[in-house]
Amino acid sequence: MPAVPAAYSELCKLMRDAAHLNSVASLLNWDQETYMPHGGSEGRAEQSSLMAGIVHERRTSPKVGELIANCEADDTLMKPGSEPAANMREMRRDYDRATKLPGELVEELAKVGSLAQDVWKEARAKDDFAKFAPWLERMFELSRRKAACYGFAEGGEAYDALLDDHEPGGTAKMIEATFAPLRASLAELLKKVADSGEGPSEKPLKLKIEADKQHKFGLFVLEKMGFDLNAGRLDVTTHPFCSGIGPGDTRLTTRYRDEKFSDALYGTLHEMGHGLYEQGLPKADHFGEPLAGDISLGIHESQSRMWENFVGRGKPFWKWIMPHAKKHLGKDFGKYTVKDYYAAVNTARPSLIRVEADEATYNMHVMIRFEIERALLSGAMKVKDVPGEWNRRYKEYLGITVPDDRRGCLQDVHWSFGLIGYFPTYTLGNLYAAQFWEKINEDLPEMDKQIAKGQFSELKNWLNEKIHKHGRRYRASELCKKVTGKELSAAPLMRHLAAKAKAVYGV
Amino acid sequence: MPAVPAAYSELCKLMRDAAHLNSVASLLNWDQETYMPHGGSEGRAEQSSLMAGIVHERRTSPKVGELIANCEADDTLMKPGSEPAANMREMRRDYDRATKLPGELVEELAKVGSLAQDVWKEARAKDDFAKFAPWLERMFELSRRKAACYGFAEGGEAYDALLDDHEPGGTAKMIEATFAPLRASLAELLKKVADSGEGPSEKPLKLKIEADKQHKFGLFVLEKMGFDLNAGRLDVTTHPFCSGIGPGDTRLTTRYRDEKFSDALYGTLHEMGHGLYEQGLPKADHFGEPLAGDISLGIHESQSRMWENFVGRGKPFWKWIMPHAKKHLGKDFGKYTVKDYYAAVNTARPSLIRVEADEATYNMHVMIRFEIERALLSGAMKVKDVPGEWNRRYKEYLGITVPDDRRGCLQDVHWSFGLIGYFPTYTLGNLYAAQFWEKINEDLPEMDKQIAKGQFSELKNWLNEKIHKHGRRYRASELCKKVTGKELSAAPLMRHLAAKAKAVYGV
Repeated sequence: MPAVPAAYSELCKLMRDAAHLNSVASLLNWDQETYMPHGGSEGRAEQSSLMAGIVHERRTSPKVGELIANCEADDTLMKPGSEPAANMREMRRDYDRATKLPGELVEELAKVGSLAQDVWKEARAKDDFAKFAPWLERMFELSRRKAACYGFAEGGEAYDALLDDHEPGGTAKMIEATFAPLRASLAELLKKVADSGEGPSEKPLKLKIEADKQHKFGLFVLEKMGFDLNAGRLDVTTHPFCSGIGPGDTRLTTRYRDEKFSDALYGTLHEMGHGLYEQGLPKADHFGEPLAGDISLGIHESQSRMWENFVGRGKPFWKWIMPHAKKHLGKDFGKYTVKDYYAAVNTARPSLIRVEADEATYNMHVMIRFEIERALLSGAMKVKDVPGEWNRRYKEYLGITVPDDRRGCLQDVHWSFGLIGYFPTYTLGNLYAAQFWEKINEDLPEMDKQIAKGQFSELKNWLNEKIHKHGRRYRASELCKKVTGKELSAAPLMRHLAAKAKAVYGV
Repeated sequence: MPAVPAAYSELCKLMRDAAHLNSVASLLNWDQETYMPHGGSEGRAEQSSLMAGIVHERRTSPKVGELIANCEADDTLMKPGSEPAANMREMRRDYDRATKLPGELVEELAKVGSLAQDVWKEARAKDDFAKFAPWLERMFELSRRKAACYGFAEGGEAYDALLDDHEPGGTAKMIEATFAPLRASLAELLKKVADSGEGPSEKPLKLKIEADKQHKFGLFVLEKMGFDLNAGRLDVTTHPFCSGIGPGDTRLTTRYRDEKFSDALYGTLHEMGHGLYEQGLPKADHFGEPLAGDISLGIHESQSRMWENFVGRGKPFWKWIMPHAKKHLGKDFGKYTVKDYYAAVNTARPSLIRVEADEATYNMHVMIRFEIERALLSGAMKVKDVPGEWNRRYKEYLGITVPDDRRGCLQDVHWSFGLIGYFPTYTLGNLYAAQFWEKINEDLPEMDKQIAKGQFSELKNWLNEKIHKHGRRYRASELCKKVTGKELSAAPLMRHLAAKAKAVYGV
């Protein structure tokens, strides 16, 4: 084994330190969402801002630039296809992007994000869009400045610059091109489903179960599915999320509704998918390097959607979980069958809340957000018009009336936090998940039987080996080709949804 | 009002930023004790070390030194007795001390402290001193280095240098001189008590009560006594503590024992005393400046011991709390009277665990720790001899046999975390509390009646006005004189303990 050049070791050490400091910033955010008392908001905004500034400073220091250049000049290190070459490619990309942002803007984004989140929470609770509007305005202003710093390709738009943070290489036009045919197919499917009559009852999901019992059940499921609770947690927040804080520390959150246990169950499975990805990344060896980073949010989301929808809404899962659910959640479960549950969790019924939406209609929620944020960013839409535009689209795409902003345009945390150009990756995640799932079923013919017995290790190993362990070694499109042999396409997702519609609605 | 000089504003801003970053470091520690999964230990050690380095760097930057010198040269600003003059006096002290420590040592202390804490937890759980011993050795080595960097006065010793971090101006000799007569008086009192017979029953405290009920009761008490739960929390840890994380964010912890509810109750009252001090400091206006800092650990502890012992173990408190305790903790309370409870919480009975000790014997626990850490630091005692020396002293001073190290020399978190020269401040706190308490009773003749009715605001206001709001404007000895008109003396504490012994044991 050739000796590792000193510049490369030093660079990796600097990146690891910066990542540890970024872990601290993640913890500040996790704490703000979980346990921080309300009185700590202003101090937290200062702390988050300072930490964002420090991390940014470390990642953009001239020393880092120098070391990257030194490494790039080293042909042995840069051997095409090698791990260091992949690391250097991504470090160069990160450095070039980060150095385009002034530290002052990074700190302000963190500070406004922290404050706006608290305003959003209150505005949402009180159904008061006007309270949140000035902060949304401010956040889009800052995001426009950020996009201008990044810049974008000829013929592109500001949105591309932000999307590139979350889905490297993606553009608004590409998203539009992917979404348009998907929307058409989906609309057709949803129409067929709607015309087929009332569909299955959701009664089996509406058992009254205390949060505490649901929580214990959630922990049981996490453990059985292979999430390492010695290196992670599950807590409660308004908006569920997964935070890969650092090596050995991956935290999930969920939320419990007394009257519908399935929200928390699927929320937990979803975040667990993210969590398994985080736990599967090679952080022990490469923390802080791109080799231990996630490729893109689309791929991250493919992992969460896979566990939530492809595993969790399948018949084998329900075969396995029924006796355990009875034990944990009460004997009312005995009133319903696996078939009842399979049908109830696979309805395709337009609804108001994205995170509670079914697999099919979910993508419509995403498309609406994409259109609105793209228009807000370009200036084609004004903040004051968001509620109206939101509600109009819900009527048009999903045929439903939004009763208030709390269940309308105030439902998501993302914009308050400055996450713009993020939503489309949710639907990309569904597409990737469906395409991976078809391949998994080819590679692991016994999987359904294993899942029905509560055995998840082969599936988890497949994901670890094929996807997790590569970190950012490949780009998302490259990985997709490498794993499935094909370019990303909407066909697998539409096949999956059509098969479910057939099984549940007979259409 | 004269304009504030630019150098002073800039200095205060730099100190505030450093304090916000120190808040982040506090949160890392709080999280490690409360919710961090075990797998996060190594990453947390790195994070804590990096943050300690960053805070240290900011507080010792040449820029800060320059600004301090500029301010000191400004006669208007330095007007004797003014707020800025007090701020500058303390900033100079902090800067001169901090610049004596190399950043590398600060980072190592933080890192070893973080790792050693985890080892301590495990060693304590498994009663395995040998596992902890090398870490204790390492921590004392680093502390010796730290003491050497600080230096100490002619005729002094290394211990003084560390004590000065916690009790500015204190020396081992002064502590010894204060402790020796106190120990003699205490030994005499404890002998009288022991000779008086069996003393009151602790049965009233030994009701079986679930942690959950105790927790709700604790929150009730906190709220009624004036702790702002909108700007604070209460959680569970192995070793209770209070962390004044930052403005609007003061976190307490406690621990619940099913079989003895009074441990958690008094633990909570104790930490609340610290918490009220933190909430009473003028952080809104002066966060990061000495004006919003705590004077010394002795004064900090005087606040916790006051609420725990002088309020919480008094008859008026029990008159007030009885009906609420019945409601929260169950009807078994009905079997006992206020008199029974007053007696049960005021026993003076040698025991193993410091944090559960009664008011009188508590000070013996402190003296034992002071002697051992002083000897370890000077090299007069070896780490391997700690269990033996510990157990020998418990036999000699308290007449009891220590059955294992878990309940012996492994019981406290302090040394693992590098807190050496800290223990004596616990007894100083008792002395200050007793002296303040006599003055409070003079100033507020209605206080007993108010407490019996659950009215705590006059007492809290007195503490806010006389003690909290001054921050570090005065030194501890100066404040004591200013508030009580007298130098600190052991007499008030001995009067207080003697009165209780008379009431409870008739001696």
